[in-house]
Amino acid sequence: MDLFAVFNAIGIVAFAVSGVFKGIAKNLDILGVSILGFLTALGGGMLRDTLSNRTPAVFVGYSDVSFALLGVIIGVFIYKTLKRDISNLMIIKISDAIGLATFTVIGAVIGFDKGFNAIGVIVLATLTGTGGGALSDLLIGEIPLILREDFYASCSIIGALIFFLIMTQPIEERLAMTITLFFTLSLRLFAIAKNLSLPRL
Amino acid sequence: MDLFAVFNAIGIVAFAVSGVFKGIAKNLDILGVSILGFLTALGGGMLRDTLSNRTPAVFVGYSDVSFALLGVIIGVFIYKTLKRDISNLMIIKISDAIGLATFTVIGAVIGFDKGFNAIGVIVLATLTGTGGGALSDLLIGEIPLILREDFYASCSIIGALIFFLIMTQPIEERLAMTITLFFTLSLRLFAIAKNLSLPRL
Amino acid sequence: MDLFAVFNAIGIVAFAVSGVFKGIAKNLDILGVSILGFLTALGGGMLRDTLSNRTPAVFVGYSDVSFALLGVIIGVFIYKTLKRDISNLMIIKISDAIGLATFTVIGAVIGFDKGFNAIGVIVLATLTGTGGGALSDLLIGEIPLILREDFYASCSIIGALIFFLIMTQPIEERLAMTITLFFTLSLRLFAIAKNLSLPRL
Repeated sequence: MDLFAVFNAIGIVAFAVSGVFKGIAKNLDILGVSILGFLTALGGGMLRDTLSNRTPAVFVGYSDVSFALLGVIIGVFIYKTLKRDISNLMIIKISDAIGLATFTVIGAVIGFDKGFNAIGVIVLATLTGTGGGALSDLLIGEIPLILREDFYASCSIIGALIFFLIMTQPIEERLAMTITLFFTLSLRLFAIAKNLSLPRL
Repeated sequence: MDLFAVFNAIGIVAFAVSGVFKGIAKNLDILGVSILGFLTALGGGMLRDTLSNRTPAVFVGYSDVSFALLGVIIGVFIYKTLKRDISNLMIIKISDAIGLATFTVIGAVIGFDKGFNAIGVIVLATLTGTGGGALSDLLIGEIPLILREDFYASCSIIGALIFFLIMTQPIEERLAMTITLFFTLSLRLFAIAKNLSLPRL
Repeated sequence: MDLFAVFNAIGIVAFAVSGVFKGIAKNLDILGVSILGFLTALGGGMLRDTLSNRTPAVFVGYSDVSFALLGVIIGVFIYKTLKRDISNLMIIKISDAIGLATFTVIGAVIGFDKGFNAIGVIVLATLTGTGGGALSDLLIGEIPLILREDFYASCSIIGALIFFLIMTQPIEERLAMTITLFFTLSLRLFAIAKNLSLPRL
């Protein structure tokens, strides 16, 4: 079983769960809650594909969609059972970090393979990793969390830059991806552990 | 005269009128009101075309734009004459339902002809039908209505799914379109008549 | 040195500075402030390229990105030094007007060269000129300024229409661009001087 495939699935489920809880907190109806779940999980990839003129990956095949659906079901089930937001549980935070790191790598690779410059690689990586959450925040009328606080989008940005720099070396793409994956994941876990955030002006 | 062309025109005018009233309610200037009218009428198609990497239909030819302009003029004229929001009048609701059903079919066909999976067909159909309204809601700082209440986007989603399922059968596309059109329209009119809405969690 | 290149650089810097001040006013962290700066400067071009299915210009080469970075640094430096928003200073308003006019021309040319109709030319021009600012407004939860007040987006719209009309004549594109540039710039400066705004309904 491929590590990236497993991590991708974990990330999609975790993102969908967090989208569901966002929707419930805003008292949306069941359709709105589901849309937020799917959008949080898959919206980043759609933004990335739109910006880079690719056919949205989610419109081809059913694997990512199935994991998003699973996440929505899990999210609703957890809420119905426990009646509380569990996004502060460590297992959710770690799964979310795995998603962030994996999506960052996927976006960076797509940008690099398109021949984009460092900005293109960073933008596609960061959109893939954080764009779904930002879109859902926008839809429910909140300033996207990534603009406001936390060392979150920064992990994507730094990870993508690392990937871009590694790829200037004579190194296999697969190895560069694995290094970037673990670097980004460690950075995010470190930020969670230390409660890192960025300074204000 | 082609039924789809007539219904498309009715829908564009109705959507533009509702956009104008949204803008007036927010005390926008005359440009802002016009932009909301055009965006509500044409924005869904633009989102659909952007996501599926097509040249925006509205950038080619002038027919849709003319109907949107007509809708903006009608909306402003109604406001100036009656000084009140008429979006609760039954004729507006029915015209809006005609637009929703027609746009749903147009989006579903485009997705299907591109070879997208069921999700792609549903997303393109729903964006075409509800994306313009959602974009305008976003621009004026409101949570899109389709997330919050009413059996509205659900009609698009169900209609698109029906279309996708019909097309797995050996049936002519034109017939599938007509069936989907009347199915979606009936569903929406039924929802209006019965005041249907979706449950919350 | 090419006039358009100089004006383009001035515009990007001015837009980035105004984005930085928007972010500071919302108490964003340093990453959020930088994102708003880059997005205000470069987001309009990205929207234009996405809508017209072009590779985002900013993903190729580093010149626009460098000017945006310069603008972000200048914005932060001004804030640190003066501790106040300087977006009301006349030099900022004039630089912003230069940006608006230049971006309008660039967007109009791209739309025209793609063979789009007048609407396509106007939409691409106006998005290039005002889309970055509108995106940043959206992200920080504000109704985009261009919808609410001022004779701003109107300058882009009128400028793009003028360009489209000139190009129906046997005239060189470069000359049409220069005429449109100075027309749009004059219109915007006139609007600033006279404090023009559009009527409400």
